[in-house]
Amino acid sequence: VSARAPIQTIPSQGEPDVTSLGQRYGAVRRATEALAAPLSAEDCLVQSMPDASPVKWHLAHSSWFFESFVLARVDGYREYHPSYGYLWNSYYESLGARHGRAQRGVLSRPSLEEVRGYRAHVDAAVADALAGRVLDAPALAALELGLNHEQQHQELILTDLKHAFAQNALAPVYRARPAGAAAGMAGAASSPEAAPLRWSRRAEGLASIGHDGRGFSFDNEGPRHRVFLGAFELASRPVTNAEYAAFIEDRGYARPELWLSDGWDAVRAGRWEAPLYWRREADRYETFTLAGTEPVAGAEPVTHVSYFEADAYARWAGARLPTEAEWEVFAADARLGGHFVESGRLHPAPAPRHGAEVVQLFGDVWEWTASPYVAYPGFCPFEGAAGEYNGKFMSGQMVLRGGSCVSPASHLRASYRNFFRPDTRWQFSGIRLARDV
Amino acid sequence: VSARAPIQTIPSQGEPDVTSLGQRYGAVRRATEALAAPLSAEDCLVQSMPDASPVKWHLAHSSWFFESFVLARVDGYREYHPSYGYLWNSYYESLGARHGRAQRGVLSRPSLEEVRGYRAHVDAAVADALAGRVLDAPALAALELGLNHEQQHQELILTDLKHAFAQNALAPVYRARPAGAAAGMAGAASSPEAAPLRWSRRAEGLASIGHDGRGFSFDNEGPRHRVFLGAFELASRPVTNAEYAAFIEDRGYARPELWLSDGWDAVRAGRWEAPLYWRREADRYETFTLAGTEPVAGAEPVTHVSYFEADAYARWAGARLPTEAEWEVFAADARLGGHFVESGRLHPAPAPRHGAEVVQLFGDVWEWTASPYVAYPGFCPFEGAAGEYNGKFMSGQMVLRGGSCVSPASHLRASYRNFFRPDTRWQFSGIRLARDV
Amino acid sequence: VSARAPIQTIPSQGEPDVTSLGQRYGAVRRATEALAAPLSAEDCLVQSMPDASPVKWHLAHSSWFFESFVLARVDGYREYHPSYGYLWNSYYESLGARHGRAQRGVLSRPSLEEVRGYRAHVDAAVADALAGRVLDAPALAALELGLNHEQQHQELILTDLKHAFAQNALAPVYRARPAGAAAGMAGAASSPEAAPLRWSRRAEGLASIGHDGRGFSFDNEGPRHRVFLGAFELASRPVTNAEYAAFIEDRGYARPELWLSDGWDAVRAGRWEAPLYWRREADRYETFTLAGTEPVAGAEPVTHVSYFEADAYARWAGARLPTEAEWEVFAADARLGGHFVESGRLHPAPAPRHGAEVVQLFGDVWEWTASPYVAYPGFCPFEGAAGEYNGKFMSGQMVLRGGSCVSPASHLRASYRNFFRPDTRWQFSGIRLARDV
Amino acid sequence: VSARAPIQTIPSQGEPDVTSLGQRYGAVRRATEALAAPLSAEDCLVQSMPDASPVKWHLAHSSWFFESFVLARVDGYREYHPSYGYLWNSYYESLGARHGRAQRGVLSRPSLEEVRGYRAHVDAAVADALAGRVLDAPALAALELGLNHEQQHQELILTDLKHAFAQNALAPVYRARPAGAAAGMAGAASSPEAAPLRWSRRAEGLASIGHDGRGFSFDNEGPRHRVFLGAFELASRPVTNAEYAAFIEDRGYARPELWLSDGWDAVRAGRWEAPLYWRREADRYETFTLAGTEPVAGAEPVTHVSYFEADAYARWAGARLPTEAEWEVFAADARLGGHFVESGRLHPAPAPRHGAEVVQLFGDVWEWTASPYVAYPGFCPFEGAAGEYNGKFMSGQMVLRGGSCVSPASHLRASYRNFFRPDTRWQFSGIRLARDV
Repeated sequence: VSARAPIQTIPSQGEPDVTSLGQRYGAVRRATEALAAPLSAEDCLVQSMPDASPVKWHLAHSSWFFESFVLARVDGYREYHPSYGYLWNSYYESLGARHGRAQRGVLSRPSLEEVRGYRAHVDAAVADALAGRVLDAPALAALELGLNHEQQHQELILTDLKHAFAQNALAPVYRARPAGAAAGMAGAASSPEAAPLRWSRRAEGLASIGHDGRGFSFDNEGPRHRVFLGAFELASRPVTNAEYAAFIEDRGYARPELWLSDGWDAVRAGRWEAPLYWRREADRYETFTLAGTEPVAGAEPVTHVSYFEADAYARWAGARLPTEAEWEVFAADARLGGHFVESGRLHPAPAPRHGAEVVQLFGDVWEWTASPYVAYPGFCPFEGAAGEYNGKFMSGQMVLRGGSCVSPASHLRASYRNFFRPDTRWQFSGIRLARDV
Repeated sequence: VSARAPIQTIPSQGEPDVTSLGQRYGAVRRATEALAAPLSAEDCLVQSMPDASPVKWHLAHSSWFFESFVLARVDGYREYHPSYGYLWNSYYESLGARHGRAQRGVLSRPSLEEVRGYRAHVDAAVADALAGRVLDAPALAALELGLNHEQQHQELILTDLKHAFAQNALAPVYRARPAGAAAGMAGAASSPEAAPLRWSRRAEGLASIGHDGRGFSFDNEGPRHRVFLGAFELASRPVTNAEYAAFIEDRGYARPELWLSDGWDAVRAGRWEAPLYWRREADRYETFTLAGTEPVAGAEPVTHVSYFEADAYARWAGARLPTEAEWEVFAADARLGGHFVESGRLHPAPAPRHGAEVVQLFGDVWEWTASPYVAYPGFCPFEGAAGEYNGKFMSGQMVLRGGSCVSPASHLRASYRNFFRPDTRWQFSGIRLARDV
Repeated sequence: VSARAPIQTIPSQGEPDVTSLGQRYGAVRRATEALAAPLSAEDCLVQSMPDASPVKWHLAHSSWFFESFVLARVDGYREYHPSYGYLWNSYYESLGARHGRAQRGVLSRPSLEEVRGYRAHVDAAVADALAGRVLDAPALAALELGLNHEQQHQELILTDLKHAFAQNALAPVYRARPAGAAAGMAGAASSPEAAPLRWSRRAEGLASIGHDGRGFSFDNEGPRHRVFLGAFELASRPVTNAEYAAFIEDRGYARPELWLSDGWDAVRAGRWEAPLYWRREADRYETFTLAGTEPVAGAEPVTHVSYFEADAYARWAGARLPTEAEWEVFAADARLGGHFVESGRLHPAPAPRHGAEVVQLFGDVWEWTASPYVAYPGFCPFEGAAGEYNGKFMSGQMVLRGGSCVSPASHLRASYRNFFRPDTRWQFSGIRLARDV
Repeated sequence: VSARAPIQTIPSQGEPDVTSLGQRYGAVRRATEALAAPLSAEDCLVQSMPDASPVKWHLAHSSWFFESFVLARVDGYREYHPSYGYLWNSYYESLGARHGRAQRGVLSRPSLEEVRGYRAHVDAAVADALAGRVLDAPALAALELGLNHEQQHQELILTDLKHAFAQNALAPVYRARPAGAAAGMAGAASSPEAAPLRWSRRAEGLASIGHDGRGFSFDNEGPRHRVFLGAFELASRPVTNAEYAAFIEDRGYARPELWLSDGWDAVRAGRWEAPLYWRREADRYETFTLAGTEPVAGAEPVTHVSYFEADAYARWAGARLPTEAEWEVFAADARLGGHFVESGRLHPAPAPRHGAEVVQLFGDVWEWTASPYVAYPGFCPFEGAAGEYNGKFMSGQMVLRGGSCVSPASHLRASYRNFFRPDTRWQFSGIRLARDV
């Protein structure tokens, strides 16, 4: 019915560089497995809520994605297992019936070892297909998509696991903080103060946002298009825990005038009194991290807040959240700085000292924007089943920009659009302020 | 915290024209009462779902609004009844506790007669205040706001009543269709064909949208600001029942690829198979109207569809919904044509024959846009409790534009932003298509 | 499939006394209408929860019962209205589709006046049928059933209305307490003390319970059968408000060890802290009654408690609830004393001074028993659709015995089995203790 | 408040035989572990619904029970782990806060191996305590209770696992049917016909039911007491799959007149069309078993039916379910025959050929009775926290009698009272009919 774009990101002129693609494929797949390496088969099976998935499911689903979108295009390829299409399909209606999302934790079979075997099979088949140069352009484009897809699941492996471990009274440690990384984690009292927040101004005028077509992007990042922006200022760094604690102290969670109506409902229904994972202990807050329970460090960016909390905080602070276009015009010129999953820190770090520039746009915490997640003008979903990847979720969600301490650095870019429902808190989501001039 | 605009729409230079304001006040109040006139006290008590309210509640709440926002500013004014603030407050957190929204149908007391007495009291007090010129500028602005507020409730009286009557196996008639208005209501087979759908183009470029400050507007209509729009085309008239029936025939409600993910969930949860109030009868559809049950007339605009249905229909039709800015640039130049509540028809009418122009932008059916309901750049809510009127609902809702067959004509304008959740169907909501060039 | 008894209560020998039956019919119908007389049409439309029904619905449904079970047996009788079978059928699956229970408050049409017309029509048709002696034995039995059915709805009219009025901040008064009846209603501090609670013993042995077949009974009261009872003691009067307040004071609602598991869940889910309608006011409790809000009087029987509360209170008091058989063996010999609807008090009254005897078994408050509502040995439901009257509800409910201050005296007897779910509180339900010897 | 019995089942005269007790302790604990032996750590973590628990949880909780009720009474015993009281407490309010029931599948930590270590620790500590003769009489009684408790969890391990495996599209096999046991499992068409159903009569009269105090029993089995029973007949064997299939064929699931009102609601809400685990395949039914998917064998007892289905079937068959007293008077004289967990079959087997006697009262399938689960006259719960074991669940549940193919034979006796909510289907619950004479 409506036109669909092929998942076409490889320049059609010239041969694609399959050697490089093969190397990247291997690197991405190994990175996923490295994330699961410290975990037991039991850890990999836990599903703590319908929104989260077991690590094993992520391992299998990301392989299924390559099987369904890449290998299925190879002549003579036979599916690995007759039930795997049912078990590991996430939400692709056009690919048939599937196991219930809320019941993924039930799948003790296939075992983690069998899923690893599945991964090895897919890896071998992809390697063969690359070596044999049997992948046509759409298949190669789907392979590229699959790598980006798998990187998204790398991040989810960590956020979902954190949510699961947080439900456990034993407060398991996924990985101790690397020696260097732990420096900033002292208690709020003793922590180095956060760098002062400054404001960076942009004059009114037209801007172009969206992906420019060089290199991979998701369909939802395009087409690049013009928007008119009024003059505004963007905060130089994210809101810190200390700043957010002042909002709590000022009865932020008890004053309906600061909240959107849906947000106020969420506060009351969920009995929210602080960010997710925070717990009041006598005169201070503790929080659960992938390195276990720690005191909340005042200089670090606040994280695990919902859009509703970000919005209420901004209102309390006499500011607002930036739109995604406002965010992107700053990010387009920014260096991909910040802490990513590669740092091993797995927790947001304080902003570096900085002057007039805007820092930490990437990494550390995703930044809620004021923009609902909808199609860009002229949006054209990927072709075929891949068209369900992004487009059908363009309702009821808000855009987050940047990336987090558990995102792979190579996965991020200025035009990247992440999106979650406004009450979501289990992602590493934080707050950057903007204000009108 | 954040700055609030006073509800200030009356030009500060010169005296406000209190005579004219008083006349309009009387006219609006009488119009509300005229809507309730054909109804029994029982009819006026029914609440058919939490989203809808009893007619009596609308009668009382709109009076409470004047009492709370206008009369409360008058020196020496004493509240009419100590419980009325609790009973008739809708959602103003800053005005204190209130009766539960879903329980409004429980309020047999005060009686309809007592509520009419309350209305009369408020009317007299407002008249006195106007005559005595004791209303300061904010009070006069609030009075203007109250009139627009009451007009919104006029529309809700009819949509809520329609929903209530539709649950009743007796299929009550609110008002028989006026003789002239009934002409177009013959069965789809015999009905005059709809005017052909044409497309009107607008070249890319900057546009200004939002209210220009002349006359009343709600806070959410401003400030006026520039947007950049790509080239696009707008359909010359809304989608008709016959066109929508073709979507149903083509298994529109059974094909997930046409739907947003949330929409598909709504289809299954609600077992939607047609617009609200449609019922399949042998080889045709019937629908419930304020004039009773009637055959669905093919040439009339389809109505009582959700955003999800509008979006799915557009996708099926190879088009899309317009953004609110796209809609407004056409509406800014359009005549306020169409059928409004004053026509007495209370049901959408077929579009008139037309040429190249875009017709029926106002009246007949509200038109879902592709725009989530969020703040305009620089949005400044009304001051005080009135700040809760619009701003706190800027989450999870979609903008509708235009007006409907149950809107008062004088209530509408090109910059008007209506908003409902995307699964809402009990309003007179329809579909206008757009497409990229 | 299973055998059904005809609704056969009239002795087959000899002519039934149709004159007397006609007089009773008139008396019961007039009593229903007298209950509705003080109410407006609006009051009669309110449905405050799915378990409760509008007064108008009770007026119509009880008439529909006569139409469906009696008049439908008369040759040539034509149904009054084609939709009334749908509108007023409560739960009889064998009589076809019906209006949703939770949506009864939506039925503004037919109006209260029309329903009164329906009642008059049914009354005339029944009178004609009786006069014409055209009712066969099953029809006469159904008429008798219909009278008892209507008396049940008389009680429900008052309990449902009380629930509706209690939701209204205006605290409407249904009927002021008659002068004499008000005497005992002074505040707990000043009230006459309750009569001391004594215990009455019964030695172990066989007993016969269930209806003996003389006069009308519901199918669930039979067959009469033998049960073996161990020795036990029954409290001489119901638990009073003062006694129940001591349970509250002793943190009864905060100690899980006193509660059944389901009861404890109900306490937390419903945030129960006192009987329904009680409200803490400074140093005392107030309660809502059909005569408005009043201080809780210590000497009156506690009412509006669930089975869970009755059970927890009994455990706290070192006693237990009686089984229905234990209750019935005492009631079989007792006078039908206590306050019924005819007293006009509409609120339980303190027990009279008494000696060794057991008082107030009937009237004032229904008494929760320890017996789940199940079939007696050899239970045989009424024949036909009337078989759905009682039998299909024999799951998940507890038996209450006696009667209440809003029951018609002529409706009650020792073998009468009332039943409600264990978390039900809107009936006039109270507590009588028993204990093992 | 109310008197509690100590968990006192060991005769106070003379020394308890600790050697024998220690041997039984070891046997029961090993049996539990044998059930888990074929399972992976992943299998042991799955929780498929809130009513079911992970195998690992059962392994840990049953150990916690010994620690809390036995070892805690030993001077100087120190708890194994500070969090285990929180993690493994099931529902004992008096033992403090606990992990949420619906979230047991989240507990990847402690690992299965650590839980096995916990079991070993408890076993050693119990062995020491027995050897050192430091257990007082209440501790010894609690030890006996703990063994019976653990046997209950042995059964739950298998029913919960079956439910989990049934959700898995891979249809995992827990254990292949032993060679001999598989004989009867041929398809319904070819299966040996079931033994003819006969009826056994008992004349009216008094009977004594309840435990007689010799050997262990749960508190809810006593005290032994007299009941009067009318004459009745009991079916000689349970209802078979073939018989139940006839009920389905006769539209049993589509005829509301056969069902209790709550049952009919359950049928519609759950879209029940057959017993749990049955699936229609062309012209026959298949069912999921612990040995994988198999054709439904006509001669086997029907199982995985709710009380509602058992009751509807009985009504359809012109019979009824027996009361628990009726069941017990037959069972008191019956041999403990039938298939238990020890048979390794783990699936109900056809009744043996039989004459006038009543067979298969124990083993194969639990038999729903017509009796709600309430206290026997004079019921006295265990003392202390053990009083929460049974008594607080005496609401909203129905009694099942006998035992099943996954019950340990030594766990069962004629007075044993099992209980579940009437809509429960995941237990091996079946149907035995009774009828009045």
